[in-house]
Amino acid sequence: MIWDILTLIGTVAFALSGAIVAMEEDYDLMGVYILGLVTAFGGGAIRNLLIGLPVSALWEQGSFFIIAVIVMSIAFIFPTILFNHWVKFHLLFDAIGLSAFAIQGALYATEMGHPLSAIIVAAALTGAGGGMVRDVLAGRKPLILQKEIYIGWAMLAGVVVGLDLLSGPIGLTILFISVIILRMLSVHLQWQLPRRKIT
Amino acid sequence: MIWDILTLIGTVAFALSGAIVAMEEDYDLMGVYILGLVTAFGGGAIRNLLIGLPVSALWEQGSFFIIAVIVMSIAFIFPTILFNHWVKFHLLFDAIGLSAFAIQGALYATEMGHPLSAIIVAAALTGAGGGMVRDVLAGRKPLILQKEIYIGWAMLAGVVVGLDLLSGPIGLTILFISVIILRMLSVHLQWQLPRRKIT
Amino acid sequence: MIWDILTLIGTVAFALSGAIVAMEEDYDLMGVYILGLVTAFGGGAIRNLLIGLPVSALWEQGSFFIIAVIVMSIAFIFPTILFNHWVKFHLLFDAIGLSAFAIQGALYATEMGHPLSAIIVAAALTGAGGGMVRDVLAGRKPLILQKEIYIGWAMLAGVVVGLDLLSGPIGLTILFISVIILRMLSVHLQWQLPRRKIT
Repeated sequence: MIWDILTLIGTVAFALSGAIVAMEEDYDLMGVYILGLVTAFGGGAIRNLLIGLPVSALWEQGSFFIIAVIVMSIAFIFPTILFNHWVKFHLLFDAIGLSAFAIQGALYATEMGHPLSAIIVAAALTGAGGGMVRDVLAGRKPLILQKEIYIGWAMLAGVVVGLDLLSGPIGLTILFISVIILRMLSVHLQWQLPRRKIT
Repeated sequence: MIWDILTLIGTVAFALSGAIVAMEEDYDLMGVYILGLVTAFGGGAIRNLLIGLPVSALWEQGSFFIIAVIVMSIAFIFPTILFNHWVKFHLLFDAIGLSAFAIQGALYATEMGHPLSAIIVAAALTGAGGGMVRDVLAGRKPLILQKEIYIGWAMLAGVVVGLDLLSGPIGLTILFISVIILRMLSVHLQWQLPRRKIT
Repeated sequence: MIWDILTLIGTVAFALSGAIVAMEEDYDLMGVYILGLVTAFGGGAIRNLLIGLPVSALWEQGSFFIIAVIVMSIAFIFPTILFNHWVKFHLLFDAIGLSAFAIQGALYATEMGHPLSAIIVAAALTGAGGGMVRDVLAGRKPLILQKEIYIGWAMLAGVVVGLDLLSGPIGLTILFISVIILRMLSVHLQWQLPRRKIT
């Protein structure tokens, strides 16, 4: 139940982020829906593919699908409302989505009996894969490969779940909140991973 | 039989559209073939993936594969012929492909017993997915997310098939022709979906 | 055993090429790892998908995975070392990877009982698919669709394996070395496939 609420918040946050990128790129209404749905569901689809779950399991998420479409419709019709709240809540929503999706992906991969490397990749892809596909379809260089730590926190969730460092409802709740806090901190304090520019 | 002819026309039209984009981007002969094949078969591959059919079912389309390669070879050797006819017939061919592929995709998803949302997405991806992959591989922003209504008509076909509004040979023929006409009208009359540019 | 060594060299070469593109695009450490892993393992993942092998078979390559991460870490920490050797060995390593991966992909597809067209595509995707995904994720137009012959040699390997022109350890070794030599020659002698630029 708690889990469903988190997935819901993550789905909505990701759908909105896709819709906003589509509006920024001057896509039409259909492009807004498509980019939003790709962002919200693309990560899970790629993860299912890579860990051996049927991709068509997507279609069991029918109600999330409908909610995402409704939220994007509201965002399209009343963009001002969205923007007033978006600036304030975007980061938090997105962090919630990242955390919920990463933990969920790691749990799926663990249940499938995959090794640690697969669990980490499943966490990373579920959390960040949708955003990558969104950026590619928008003709952008994927931001999450460049800016503040993003995928890193998803992978951390994968490590914690994969090594069974935290488990059970309480353990996972602690992990869930920790990832959100770490993500928020990394943005506000501008933590960066090292980089090496070569030309 | 009729169905095979339509799929054939769609395959040829999509292969040619990919080949032309490749030539516009100064790709070599291999790039022309690859972009053409991706445009013609990519949508079906993604659809199979998402609705739970084996992607490797692609390989049963061997004869379409060969025809696509022959047509692209002719286009590459005699580009002037292509262009004289392309301007006239491109839109019609492409609309035929869009319509045939969208209905085919919707029928596949229906046979698999998927819900309406999956049927609509299957129609959209089969009709428009190849063109999206083509644009991404050509380093372009996917046009069909921006310009006149395109995916919308594919989705309409999905709705009609999914709700069983039209069925049987006659019903599907009506649907097939309607989607072609709607697509042609939307180009010639410059119908647009609403858009909201934010910066 | 020989085979594993070749796959290893190919994996390392491809991981390094992805890491270098990521550094050129100013991606951070995580982006470097991701782009390297996508380049090294993406082609095999797409091939598995298209020929009907489980994509999750990827996870049985755990040790290659770890080696790729170690090599990329060294490259990131000591970029000068990498660059001194990269200029000299890049082309050769990459040609080894292309050849080993293309033959391996063709053999997989043959074992699955697929027709010749599928064997050629499997060879092409295993050899060149990772590089294509790398370029798309880096926001670049895929180079291998434009420059000297690259995919063509992978497809040649597919034809030779598919038609059973060379087989057995000795036959495949001859093919393996031939593809490497052809690739090196095509770069040094600047062989080009025909192209037709239209505007």
